[in-house]
Amino acid sequence: MPGADQNEGDCLNHLAAWHQKTAFDAAVALQNRSLSAQAYLGACLDQIDAREPEVHAFAYIHREGALARAKALDAGAIQGAMHGLTIGIKDVFDTYDMPTEGGSPAFAGHQSVQDAAVLATLRRAGAVMLGKTITTELATFPTNGTRNPLNLAHTPGGSSSGSAAAVAAQMVSFATGTQTMGSTVRPCGYCGVTGYKPSYNLMPRRGVWPNADSCDTVGLVARDVRDVAFFAAEMARYPALRLPDDVVALDQAPVIGLCRTHEWERTDEAMRRAFEECGRILRAAGAQVREIVLPEPFKGMLQAHTTVVHYEMSRGFADLVERHSDRMRPALLERTLKGLQVTGEQYQQAQTLARQCRQMLDDVLGPCHVLLAPAATGEAPRGQEHSGDTSMNQVWTLMHGPAISVTGGYGPNGLPLAMQVVGRIDDDARTLLAAHWVHTRLRAHHELTRA
Amino acid sequence: MPGADQNEGDCLNHLAAWHQKTAFDAAVALQNRSLSAQAYLGACLDQIDAREPEVHAFAYIHREGALARAKALDAGAIQGAMHGLTIGIKDVFDTYDMPTEGGSPAFAGHQSVQDAAVLATLRRAGAVMLGKTITTELATFPTNGTRNPLNLAHTPGGSSSGSAAAVAAQMVSFATGTQTMGSTVRPCGYCGVTGYKPSYNLMPRRGVWPNADSCDTVGLVARDVRDVAFFAAEMARYPALRLPDDVVALDQAPVIGLCRTHEWERTDEAMRRAFEECGRILRAAGAQVREIVLPEPFKGMLQAHTTVVHYEMSRGFADLVERHSDRMRPALLERTLKGLQVTGEQYQQAQTLARQCRQMLDDVLGPCHVLLAPAATGEAPRGQEHSGDTSMNQVWTLMHGPAISVTGGYGPNGLPLAMQVVGRIDDDARTLLAAHWVHTRLRAHHELTRA
Repeated sequence: MPGADQNEGDCLNHLAAWHQKTAFDAAVALQNRSLSAQAYLGACLDQIDAREPEVHAFAYIHREGALARAKALDAGAIQGAMHGLTIGIKDVFDTYDMPTEGGSPAFAGHQSVQDAAVLATLRRAGAVMLGKTITTELATFPTNGTRNPLNLAHTPGGSSSGSAAAVAAQMVSFATGTQTMGSTVRPCGYCGVTGYKPSYNLMPRRGVWPNADSCDTVGLVARDVRDVAFFAAEMARYPALRLPDDVVALDQAPVIGLCRTHEWERTDEAMRRAFEECGRILRAAGAQVREIVLPEPFKGMLQAHTTVVHYEMSRGFADLVERHSDRMRPALLERTLKGLQVTGEQYQQAQTLARQCRQMLDDVLGPCHVLLAPAATGEAPRGQEHSGDTSMNQVWTLMHGPAISVTGGYGPNGLPLAMQVVGRIDDDARTLLAAHWVHTRLRAHHELTRA
Repeated sequence: MPGADQNEGDCLNHLAAWHQKTAFDAAVALQNRSLSAQAYLGACLDQIDAREPEVHAFAYIHREGALARAKALDAGAIQGAMHGLTIGIKDVFDTYDMPTEGGSPAFAGHQSVQDAAVLATLRRAGAVMLGKTITTELATFPTNGTRNPLNLAHTPGGSSSGSAAAVAAQMVSFATGTQTMGSTVRPCGYCGVTGYKPSYNLMPRRGVWPNADSCDTVGLVARDVRDVAFFAAEMARYPALRLPDDVVALDQAPVIGLCRTHEWERTDEAMRRAFEECGRILRAAGAQVREIVLPEPFKGMLQAHTTVVHYEMSRGFADLVERHSDRMRPALLERTLKGLQVTGEQYQQAQTLARQCRQMLDDVLGPCHVLLAPAATGEAPRGQEHSGDTSMNQVWTLMHGPAISVTGGYGPNGLPLAMQVVGRIDDDARTLLAAHWVHTRLRAHHELTRA
């Protein structure tokens, strides 16, 4: 299987170099000092040296700063659970010690005075900030040259392009992302790593550049669900998000709703086959699996999301348009100006529909713990010019609940076909637990069939 | 009546100096060039010279910049509806041409590279940015010396202290505010001007400093409801928010729900009397008035708001705590650290309750167009150390619907007793129209009884 992650096989894990292991495993070694922060950072930097020239995940690599930090961590007490773990920071998160350019010529060389809130929290817990990862322009759609580490001819997706690619290329333990359309779940799906879009507002946005306020969500990128839950618990200071350490023994099969969504026609043949196959695999692994049809009003949600985002983005980018339109990509400027045609009445109607659908979600799930839905229309498309079709992500972003990407199969190019585990709004801990169950069962199946 | 607004009497308006008139009336004259931008600005600056030394509304006055802008406006074509109108900007809105300090020593001398989105939109429409108004520390609670222009011994409220005071002292046409607890509606109520907290996310937050993401809302301050609706229409590029120009002829009496709320026991005797009296006045003026009792789950909303804000603020201020704790007021540092004790589970339960109550609101209003509720527990308290009790505002902020302050009577010190007109979520245009009806009827009554 081209590009399959070596680190995903537990049997290989103890033989692997440190950068290949999960963050959770590295954390255990870092906490008991059997691994030094400097040694771990060295493994990450070696991997960056090896792969960054072809992947282009980073906008800025803070090599000296990271080395000094790792040295200080090794010399001092254990700071917290993140001690020595390395972070790639999407370049729309303010950092006081690195430039923040947002993938936009309008902010070339821009230095913020503050750290985004989640970064300050992660630093406090001992994280090593390794650099800024490439984002599409202002976390929208014009791409900035990052390639999919699983196949360099394909897009990694966006807007969190560099974050998904850096974790997939095993350059960092974790990376931060954002999601307004599908900017965390989709690129992570394309790159075969775990993207987690938490419930809206669960992670503080202070210091993260806004795009469309009603949908903007801090996203998390990691190797697997256990890692991403560990990362989220630290980022939010919400310990219950972390999976129980004995999760393998504990985990009961969840009740899963297979949800084709009203956007099913947009998926390709390979995605549809993989989705059906996921249902069979999960049922065979012991889950109760039900078919879930979203009620009629959900048919309007894709358009409602587009309406909300275009209204908010067009008005939110007013200063850029007024003072820096010559430094916006023409396609972005055009879309921004077009968004001004969305009327306030249309916007408020779309928001009203979104609230109605959110209120229905609990009944829609019924006995299900989570839904499983496609996370993309197919594999990562070929080429670097587009970051892929967002239509499988938009409804769930506007819904405000948690969504976590898992690899559901492989497509004609050997690239991942990503599904997303979607939970009730503000039911993140349970959704992560169910996503872990789904992820491990699907991975076990794929390892078996690849063997 | 000490401190009663001269500009509020239409009969006086044509005799008044320009700074005393409503922005709507000034706009008419500015648009037809019978009033120059420089003359209008001169009137505002004279008023600042007269009253600012005792009121302390401004953190920064951009005198030279405003003069140059007014001169350019007079020399050029009409830019838009805001042509020549003056704005006081709460000092948590980024401005590329003035410092933004957020009322915090941690940001002393801070210069942003951008304009908050709403400011760029207002500038484009021809507004003159007159200066930055004083905010409490980071739009929370420690005060920064602003006095109530109606009675200098009393607080103007907060956190939009300077914005409410600057409009009440007739120094500017309009001012921007924010509301997370009750930071627009309450200070405007205390100062006898119109504060409008729009539906959540209707106004873009890009460039506005965050406090608690789930509640942060851009607020608007003006002389009366017609003015604030005019201001909102320009700020959001949402023309339908503006009241019809023939609103006096058109306006039909709304159906109004008198809503004592579950926080009624927190109001003082004078507020309760004024509230009951408002019901009688509005009924006598032709409105259908009903008594509305909020359902049982609303009893949890005050605590839910506190939980949500403390969770989000404590995590959102992480960089300040980590790197600038010595430059935070001890009371703010203490509250921030205490907020970390709010668990993620408590937070998500509070969010879930808020969603449930939002979904009930439509049925609660039933045939009512709007609710009328107290906007504060009583008059503006004496002293400058506290910005007043937020408990009458918190529930409505978490509800996410529009709220507009109107003066409902006068208290023992002759200061306003403020009510708020509360609408359905995302029903802002209709709520503004109803608030205009309520405001004009209450004002007419008070003018009659004062005569």
